[in-house]
Amino acid sequence: MSIEIPSIEDIQQAHQRIQKHIHPTPILTSRLINAQAGGELFFKCENFQKAGAFKFRGASNAVFSLSEKQARQGVATHSSGNHAQAVALAAKKRGIPAHIVMPENAPVVKKRAVADYGGQITECKPTLDAREKTLEQLVEKTGATFIHPYNDPRIIAGQGTAAMELLEEVKDLDMILTPVGGGGLLSGTAITMKNLHPSGQVTGTEPKQADDAYRSFKAGKLIPVTDPDTVADGLRTSLGPLTFSIISRYADDIVTVSEDSIIKAMRLIWERMNIIIEPSSAVPLAAILEQSIDVEGLKAGIIISGGNVDLEHLPWQKL
Amino acid sequence: MSIEIPSIEDIQQAHQRIQKHIHPTPILTSRLINAQAGGELFFKCENFQKAGAFKFRGASNAVFSLSEKQARQGVATHSSGNHAQAVALAAKKRGIPAHIVMPENAPVVKKRAVADYGGQITECKPTLDAREKTLEQLVEKTGATFIHPYNDPRIIAGQGTAAMELLEEVKDLDMILTPVGGGGLLSGTAITMKNLHPSGQVTGTEPKQADDAYRSFKAGKLIPVTDPDTVADGLRTSLGPLTFSIISRYADDIVTVSEDSIIKAMRLIWERMNIIIEPSSAVPLAAILEQSIDVEGLKAGIIISGGNVDLEHLPWQKL
Repeated sequence: MSIEIPSIEDIQQAHQRIQKHIHPTPILTSRLINAQAGGELFFKCENFQKAGAFKFRGASNAVFSLSEKQARQGVATHSSGNHAQAVALAAKKRGIPAHIVMPENAPVVKKRAVADYGGQITECKPTLDAREKTLEQLVEKTGATFIHPYNDPRIIAGQGTAAMELLEEVKDLDMILTPVGGGGLLSGTAITMKNLHPSGQVTGTEPKQADDAYRSFKAGKLIPVTDPDTVADGLRTSLGPLTFSIISRYADDIVTVSEDSIIKAMRLIWERMNIIIEPSSAVPLAAILEQSIDVEGLKAGIIISGGNVDLEHLPWQKL
Repeated sequence: MSIEIPSIEDIQQAHQRIQKHIHPTPILTSRLINAQAGGELFFKCENFQKAGAFKFRGASNAVFSLSEKQARQGVATHSSGNHAQAVALAAKKRGIPAHIVMPENAPVVKKRAVADYGGQITECKPTLDAREKTLEQLVEKTGATFIHPYNDPRIIAGQGTAAMELLEEVKDLDMILTPVGGGGLLSGTAITMKNLHPSGQVTGTEPKQADDAYRSFKAGKLIPVTDPDTVADGLRTSLGPLTFSIISRYADDIVTVSEDSIIKAMRLIWERMNIIIEPSSAVPLAAILEQSIDVEGLKAGIIISGGNVDLEHLPWQKL
């Protein structure tokens, strides 16, 4: 497996490759949140990334890595979330077809977003089994290249470019915190940090109610989540073999947080920074506010994963 | 009255005076909103200003214009909105007392925000008469200087600095659009534009259901609003004599928009730009989407007035 782990050179190449396609997202700070946290927090705002999330980095790297011949046959993935939109938009920019398998009960707004980016949607029954089978048939029929949402070295290398930009702008970070779902963002971030700034810590933050990465990391073996139940919809997936092996090797720690803390941290960022972030993005700040991570007197980078939320139903309105 | 109209030099001095206290707010664009509007829109994001709105520019200019002797006795105002927070924070930065008269039924969140910035709140009955009387007594007792939210040349000069920054960064704007409530922002913007870039147009945009500025502008005399009923809570106030005389002289036009358009434009900005803006800030884009203002092939600056919203109750959830 280790042969597939992307190197820092892969991440640097990814950055070169995708640079003219992505937004160089801003890094924001908040005096009021710093006062509450006791340290200096630097938010890398991938909610302002194209397609609304860091996922566009990995998807662009994968799509623009393809040979001309591969590219002509298009790309395919199954996802009901940010990865689907990211792959559709990256394929559109390269001028190739994107086949997206989505469960038939996926929210209309998500389907519309994928279609708006030119993605060709194939619906399936809402089970993992149906998704995988439908995708397999599609790939067979079209010859498209499957782009996995996280367990893929091209994706991981692309996601690592967010931390690279963060470290270019704030050189002396003591740590970087990311949310963990499938682990692509944490993997890319950890490889970047340990190569460019080895004394810096990298910690993954995860909802207690979808804590497969935490349990896998502590047990030293992959333990997929069985019944994830978290407001952080981007983090309901489990680590894959590749992301697990990278995280085991490069991450310093994984901590978990309560649902209540996620919602409070999300609201704090909305209110104090006037930016829209999705629940997953609030998990690192939740860990700081719960004091699971101590930033007292330190400089911490936080990767805000995305800003795709349902504006009809905000989580604090359910409390 | 004309003697009180601030000059472009007053605005330049204001900019010097407040520069180290304010945020130099970013100017954002959205490819998707441009495609829908048919022109290039440049959003000057005062929702990222300190205290969450452009009001902090005027309040800082007024507070830091005071002599040492005046300043020692503090400042006072009556407001339940962004001006109250802005005056409280500006006074805190100068280290002087801020006395804020607020109606007893003002939302708790607004009172807390003022108190957080160190403002000393005096409650009164929720009528204009009670507000003015309470303020008068307070000024008499404390010797504090009254800072009117808009009908004051120091305030207008401060508000004009947002357009100044916008024109520094985007030199060839064909027009600037602002919302109009009391008219301080539109007044400062118009003086700036007509002096620095005389061929550029300045148009005020106002809710149809609080259209005193539109009616006053067309009639050539001040016609205060009697029963404002708009979701854009920052725009329920009427022009004052000073802002009316500046707007009559320097603004090119005022257009009005429906409530429905305001809510749609607000949601479009939230969804497409992932930033939190208050309803008042959406009024200029609403006018473009209603085609009351034609930006086809043009470059238009829009001043996003602020980002202070009640996250429990979003306007599209009431539709």
